[in-house]
Amino acid sequence: MTDNRHTASRRAFLKGGLALGGAAVTATAARGDDPAIIEMQPWTSQLGEGVDARPYGHPSPYEAEVKRRNVAWLTADPISSVNFTPLHELDGIITPNGLCFERHHGGIAEVDPANWRLMINGLVDKPLVFTLDDLKRFPRVNKIHFLECAANSGMEWRGAQLNGCQFTHGMIHNVMYTGVPLRYLLEEAGLKPNAEWLLPEGGDASGMTRSLPLFKAIDDCMIAFKMNGEALRPEQGYPARLVVPGWEGNMWVKWIRRIEVGDQPWHHREETSKYTDLMANGQARRFTWEMDVKSVITNPSPQAPITHSHGATVLTGVAWSGRGTITEVHVTRDGGKNWDRARIDGPSLDKSMHRFYYEFNWDGKPMLLQSRAIDSEGMIQPTKNELRKVRGVNSIYHNNGIQTWHVRETGEAENVEVS
Amino acid sequence: MTDNRHTASRRAFLKGGLALGGAAVTATAARGDDPAIIEMQPWTSQLGEGVDARPYGHPSPYEAEVKRRNVAWLTADPISSVNFTPLHELDGIITPNGLCFERHHGGIAEVDPANWRLMINGLVDKPLVFTLDDLKRFPRVNKIHFLECAANSGMEWRGAQLNGCQFTHGMIHNVMYTGVPLRYLLEEAGLKPNAEWLLPEGGDASGMTRSLPLFKAIDDCMIAFKMNGEALRPEQGYPARLVVPGWEGNMWVKWIRRIEVGDQPWHHREETSKYTDLMANGQARRFTWEMDVKSVITNPSPQAPITHSHGATVLTGVAWSGRGTITEVHVTRDGGKNWDRARIDGPSLDKSMHRFYYEFNWDGKPMLLQSRAIDSEGMIQPTKNELRKVRGVNSIYHNNGIQTWHVRETGEAENVEVS
Repeated sequence: MTDNRHTASRRAFLKGGLALGGAAVTATAARGDDPAIIEMQPWTSQLGEGVDARPYGHPSPYEAEVKRRNVAWLTADPISSVNFTPLHELDGIITPNGLCFERHHGGIAEVDPANWRLMINGLVDKPLVFTLDDLKRFPRVNKIHFLECAANSGMEWRGAQLNGCQFTHGMIHNVMYTGVPLRYLLEEAGLKPNAEWLLPEGGDASGMTRSLPLFKAIDDCMIAFKMNGEALRPEQGYPARLVVPGWEGNMWVKWIRRIEVGDQPWHHREETSKYTDLMANGQARRFTWEMDVKSVITNPSPQAPITHSHGATVLTGVAWSGRGTITEVHVTRDGGKNWDRARIDGPSLDKSMHRFYYEFNWDGKPMLLQSRAIDSEGMIQPTKNELRKVRGVNSIYHNNGIQTWHVRETGEAENVEVS
Repeated sequence: MTDNRHTASRRAFLKGGLALGGAAVTATAARGDDPAIIEMQPWTSQLGEGVDARPYGHPSPYEAEVKRRNVAWLTADPISSVNFTPLHELDGIITPNGLCFERHHGGIAEVDPANWRLMINGLVDKPLVFTLDDLKRFPRVNKIHFLECAANSGMEWRGAQLNGCQFTHGMIHNVMYTGVPLRYLLEEAGLKPNAEWLLPEGGDASGMTRSLPLFKAIDDCMIAFKMNGEALRPEQGYPARLVVPGWEGNMWVKWIRRIEVGDQPWHHREETSKYTDLMANGQARRFTWEMDVKSVITNPSPQAPITHSHGATVLTGVAWSGRGTITEVHVTRDGGKNWDRARIDGPSLDKSMHRFYYEFNWDGKPMLLQSRAIDSEGMIQPTKNELRKVRGVNSIYHNNGIQTWHVRETGEAENVEVS
C-alpha cells in the first residue's frame, strides 16, 4: 500500500461509472423495510459444524436441484444412455466434477487403479503395458478443454423439442485435465514407418473403440488421470481417459486400456452404426471429428426465468469451438433483427468453453433471445435452417445451430424456432 | 484434416525427442509377463451403473484417502479450527470444491439463500440491503485466485514440525470465482467524501470482521457467489463471500452480511488478538495483508514417497504470490548448492496458483529437495533463516520460507531443515 496507489484508485473510482458498453445498471436495492433484517437471521446466533465434519465437502442442501438429469424416454436403458449438465445453474467456465454430463455405452466401469493397465501394441517397435505409476513418470501437461458429445442438440434438428438448455445443450463440460501427452507414450513404444492410425479401446463392458488419426494423437492428445485437480471421476473414465481436444466426445475413450497402432481406420461399430452423419441423400458423412463453433444463452432460459418485472438484467451464456478460441459473441433480443456484442469474461483458452455476458435494461416486454459465436478461424455459428439446407434432418449429430428462447412478459422462457 | 497438417505433425514427431530441458525419460514399461493382463480385468465383463445413478457425482471409492484432514491437538474445538487441503494428492491448478481447506471461527453457518441479505451502511449516501437476486442483476466477473490463510506454514517458524505438505502448506486453495465487483455495489450506495475504510462482517456466529482499505475494495475485490462454476460451498461462505485477491484469507469474509463504510480502521478482535505478527522485540506488525511469494514441492513429500528405486522421476509442486504471477521456480536436489529451473505448466494468472514440474533421472540416492519461486514483482522466496533473522520466531503468520524434504534411498521423505 502506498498513498499513490490509494489516490489513483480513488480517483478512478470517483470518475467511475460502470462503463460496460452501453448497459446501464439501475438501482435494484433499497429495502430499509425488508422484513428479513439482518439481526433476525438465525445462523448468526448458533454455532455451526466444525472442520472435522466434512473430510470431502458437498453442496448446500439448498442446492439439491442443481444436478445432472437424464431423460427416461430417450434411450432403452440407463446403462447405455446420457444425462445432462445443468448449464443454467452454472457460471464461469469450469464445470464442477460432480455435474459433468455422462454418456455410457455399457455403464460405469469400476476400475481398481492398482490393476489398471494401458497396452500399446500393433505397428510398434516394442509393445508396452503401462501401470498408473509408470504413466506418472512421464512429463505432464495441464489443459482446460470442453468435451461435447457429437449428439449435443441432436433432438433439435427437426424443430424445437426440449425445454431447457440443460437438455438442448447440456452434453458438454469443461474441466482442467492433467495428463501425459500421448506422443510421449508412442515415442516410448516406437512407431513402425507405416503407422497412420490408432485404435483406442475402453476397459468398460462396451469395449468402446474409435479410429484416431495419428496426426491428432501426436498434435495434442493426452492420457489424462486428473480432472479439476483430483483423480478422474468413475463416470469420466477413472483412473485414465483419452483427451482429444476439440473433437467429438465419443473419441475421448474412458477407462482406456489399449491403443492399437495400424495403417488404416478400423470402421468399428461406434464409427459406422453411430457417429456418422446421415445426409438427406442417404449418404453418410464419416469422421466428422471437429466440434464446430457454437453458443447458447443459459440465463434466462426455460429452466431459469427472469424473476423481476423489468430493469437491470444480466443475460449470460457459453460459447466454444473445436477449432480454437472464441473471438466474438453477439446477442439479439428480437430474433435476429438487431445484434449487440456480448462481453466475454474469464480466461480465453484454446478449445475451451468461454463465458459471455450481456447486461441490459429489460422493458418487461417479450423477447426472442439468440446468441451467435465466431471463432478464431473466422467460423460463424449458423442458423438451424442454414444447417438443414446443407445437411437435411436425418442426422442427430453436429447440430451447432443458433438456439432461440422466447421470453414472455412474465419472465418465463420457452424453446422456439424463428423462421 | 489436410495432408499438410498430417505431414508436418509427423515430421515433428519423427525428429522428436522429449526436449524437456535436460530431463531424459527412460523406458519405464515393458511388462509382457505382467500378471494383470488386460483380458483378466473384471470390469470388462460386467455392465456398470447407468446415468440415473449419480445426479451429483462423487470420487471413486479407491480415492477415499484423498480428503481434508484436521489436527485435533492444534485447537481447543473443531468449530474454531482449521483443516488442510491434500496438496500431495492434487495436480494442475484447480482445487476441487470438496477439498478446499476450511477455517472457521464459529463453525459452518447454514444460510438459507432466500433469507440472505447484504447491507451496505455507514458513510454512504444511501444505505442499501441486497438480496441474492439483486446481486445477480449487477455485472459479473470470473477470476481464478488462491486463498491462503495467513497462518499457513505457521508451525514451521521454530523448525520442522509437521510431516506432510498437506499440514505444512495445506491452508491454501485455488478456484475460479464468479461474482460482482465490490465497487459496483459501493457505487450504487454512493460513498461520502471521507470514506476510506470498509468493515466487512460475516453472518456466522463469530461475526467475523476485518478492516479493509477502500483502495483495495475498489481495485479488485468482489462479492462471489460461485466457485468452480457452482454455488459456493457452505464451508466457503454460501451463498456469498468476499474475495480479496492476493491478501490473507481471514479477510475473505464468508457468509457476508454487512459492509460498513468508515473513515478509519476499526481494530477489531480478529485484527488485534489475531492476524498481527509479533516480532522479536515485542512489537507487532499489523495490516500485513499481502501474501508473499511462496512455493512447495508436493511430490515427492512425506505423504507421497517415490515408489520406484531409480530412474525417470517427476517432481511437482505449486507456487503463488499475492503480488502477481510467478515468473520462475527453481528446484534443488542437494539442499541449495545447485539449482535448476523448473517448468511452469498451465495458465499463469494474476494472484493464482501456478503448477511446476521438474523431470529428472533419480540415481536412487538421498536428496534434500527444495523449491524457490520468483514473482512478477521480482520478489524471491526467502529461506526460513532469512525470515527469522528479520522477524524472530514469535509470530505464527506470513511464513513464506523455503521448505525442505529429505528423501531417503527408500523413496520416503521427511520434513527437515538445512542450516
